[in-house]
Amino acid sequence: MEEWQLARGYRFAGVHCGIRDDSDKLDLALIVSEEPAAAAGVFTQNRVVAAPVTVCRNRLPRADARGIVICSGNANACTGQRGLDDAERMAHLTAELLGLSGEQILVGSTGVIGRHLPMENVESGIGAAFEVLSPEANAFEKVAQAILTTDTGIKVSTRALTLDDGYDAKITGIAKGAAMIGPNMATMLAYVMTDAGVGPSQLQQIASQAAAKTFNCISVEGHTSTNDTLILLANGKMGKLEGDYLKRFAELTTEVCAELAQAIAKDAEGASHFVTIDVSGSRSDDEARQIAKTIAESALVKTAIFGADPNWGRIVSAAGYSGVEFSESDMSLSLGDTLLYDRGTPVDFNAEKLSAFIRDHRDINLKIDFGLGTGSCTFWTSDLTYEYIRLNAEYTT
Amino acid sequence: MEEWQLARGYRFAGVHCGIRDDSDKLDLALIVSEEPAAAAGVFTQNRVVAAPVTVCRNRLPRADARGIVICSGNANACTGQRGLDDAERMAHLTAELLGLSGEQILVGSTGVIGRHLPMENVESGIGAAFEVLSPEANAFEKVAQAILTTDTGIKVSTRALTLDDGYDAKITGIAKGAAMIGPNMATMLAYVMTDAGVGPSQLQQIASQAAAKTFNCISVEGHTSTNDTLILLANGKMGKLEGDYLKRFAELTTEVCAELAQAIAKDAEGASHFVTIDVSGSRSDDEARQIAKTIAESALVKTAIFGADPNWGRIVSAAGYSGVEFSESDMSLSLGDTLLYDRGTPVDFNAEKLSAFIRDHRDINLKIDFGLGTGSCTFWTSDLTYEYIRLNAEYTT
Repeated sequence: MEEWQLARGYRFAGVHCGIRDDSDKLDLALIVSEEPAAAAGVFTQNRVVAAPVTVCRNRLPRADARGIVICSGNANACTGQRGLDDAERMAHLTAELLGLSGEQILVGSTGVIGRHLPMENVESGIGAAFEVLSPEANAFEKVAQAILTTDTGIKVSTRALTLDDGYDAKITGIAKGAAMIGPNMATMLAYVMTDAGVGPSQLQQIASQAAAKTFNCISVEGHTSTNDTLILLANGKMGKLEGDYLKRFAELTTEVCAELAQAIAKDAEGASHFVTIDVSGSRSDDEARQIAKTIAESALVKTAIFGADPNWGRIVSAAGYSGVEFSESDMSLSLGDTLLYDRGTPVDFNAEKLSAFIRDHRDINLKIDFGLGTGSCTFWTSDLTYEYIRLNAEYTT
Repeated sequence: MEEWQLARGYRFAGVHCGIRDDSDKLDLALIVSEEPAAAAGVFTQNRVVAAPVTVCRNRLPRADARGIVICSGNANACTGQRGLDDAERMAHLTAELLGLSGEQILVGSTGVIGRHLPMENVESGIGAAFEVLSPEANAFEKVAQAILTTDTGIKVSTRALTLDDGYDAKITGIAKGAAMIGPNMATMLAYVMTDAGVGPSQLQQIASQAAAKTFNCISVEGHTSTNDTLILLANGKMGKLEGDYLKRFAELTTEVCAELAQAIAKDAEGASHFVTIDVSGSRSDDEARQIAKTIAESALVKTAIFGADPNWGRIVSAAGYSGVEFSESDMSLSLGDTLLYDRGTPVDFNAEKLSAFIRDHRDINLKIDFGLGTGSCTFWTSDLTYEYIRLNAEYTT
């Protein structure tokens, strides 16, 4: 097991309660803070949102959160009023066991859309999880496992922030996500716990800024989920942060989110390549992101990379339909260190050599530069493979 | 051979000139009108446009067009000034052989982006095509073949319009396209010839209106091409159209374009299903189209249909990230005759039966209804299969 920096004052539990009858994986997780914690969140931009997203939006930001209950295998989305009642029931049942108010517990779900939760299983799962709550690393790891769906492994990122007194505050993040990953959040759940003290409104600002540069800069197939959730909890066990410490905390939290976001893109269903797209020289960061996103979501770009095919015209033409205004003579493109398109003119290159380079490297870097301004964006995605089709053609039934 | 309605006063030729050295397919086509023809066009909305698109945009609409020269296997896109020179040279060489001005000849290309045309082959191909120009159906069919790339077959649609004197005017359309098909035109070329007489500005209006409801309502993977072109030629051999005849001509031209657009979606690379998406009850036709387009381009929706998986949550969530404002309780969804989601609430259905229905039917109909207004759109797409990945991972190198 890796050496994780576990935030103090939290207890964890991950159990199997049988949310999907075809699986025996851990599917219900509890995260509990011993003390009231500041809590903030960032959620999907989809118009159709899952019940737990509605429940969390109503509760956040707040100063006295005490925990999160999460189930995987069922999204509790498109489930109408009954879905909302079920999500509230998850929170209230957890609160009851802990002697708290339901409002202090946040809720998360991920999985198939449009099915009602099997509440009998969920309720017994919450009871079982409560019984085994523990601050230990193996309990934490079970939470990281219990929130997964088609992921091939847990996604954890942690950092330590050394304080005045020589002690460290810890930032402990977990995430899940492998498909239905569009920017503006994805079917991704991410929970970041810290024992530093940060007020709810500051925490909200840090969450929003971190998400913009991390979870909103990944895409698998551009399908924005109904359930996307990033929640930050700060229980202040190590004392309140101010000034430079607060700034450094925001930076480290963004690092944790970036590592989790990249782990999601790297675990993209069926992916054989991890692709980093750097756009620079555009009029604004937003325009750079719009271009990067369009390239990242082009099935033709993604299949070309899967096929180790340096068919760069697909990349240029994807930029061309991004909706951002530019002329061909503004644009240059490199793959790795190979310049392919130089201010609107194709450059001779050794296609066989570049194809071999793509085949031999899992990590591929595309650089697109415009001579229009100082806007830039780094965006992460995957290629599109037979295995993606297999996984997604066979997922529910 | 089908009974096609061939417009009079046109001559055709399709030859092999070796634009791609790995293929012996017909790859150069000539269409020549015996008399000066009104000509109008609709082109890609990509910011990056192929040289022949720039050349055609400069020439259209006009009253004295005499023909079109088209090559397949190379898009002549992202080829800088040399690409523009090559496209102009194709027009001028054709014009020279016919004793015309270069301005009277339009140009088209489709194929790989970013490579210069092998002009020696193209020039000898133009000479060879000129030698075999003929008004016969078999020459016309060779044109329909010569414009294809990965298409599995020719795409032809024709109509006849009975005139006052009992004679028919003919509308004769051909198209190519099987991938890089995004709305707002696609890697599709479509040419519609008529022997009716229609002025250039009326013809332009008819072209734009027809494209909006047909070629702009199909998508394979949402990748808008650099080369999309629809050109209408009207040589007036059967006399000038007015009043109701003109109106009927516009309707029949739209029918021809719709049949060609559907043929493209049906021939989508690797597709095993042809999917019709009907959106109704939205605030406007534009909003309906935006929702239909987003659903049509969702890899998760397309793989679910490939897998015969009635995983309808993917459809609802795709509508949710279309950018159109609505509440879940505004939305209903049916697949075939099966209601799945009724004003925000999931409906019980027999998943095994519906899965069998999808597996057994190539044509699948999705109906999405909102209670918000009278806007509507019919949109056509395909599923996403292993074969699409194979074709697109192996295309250029």
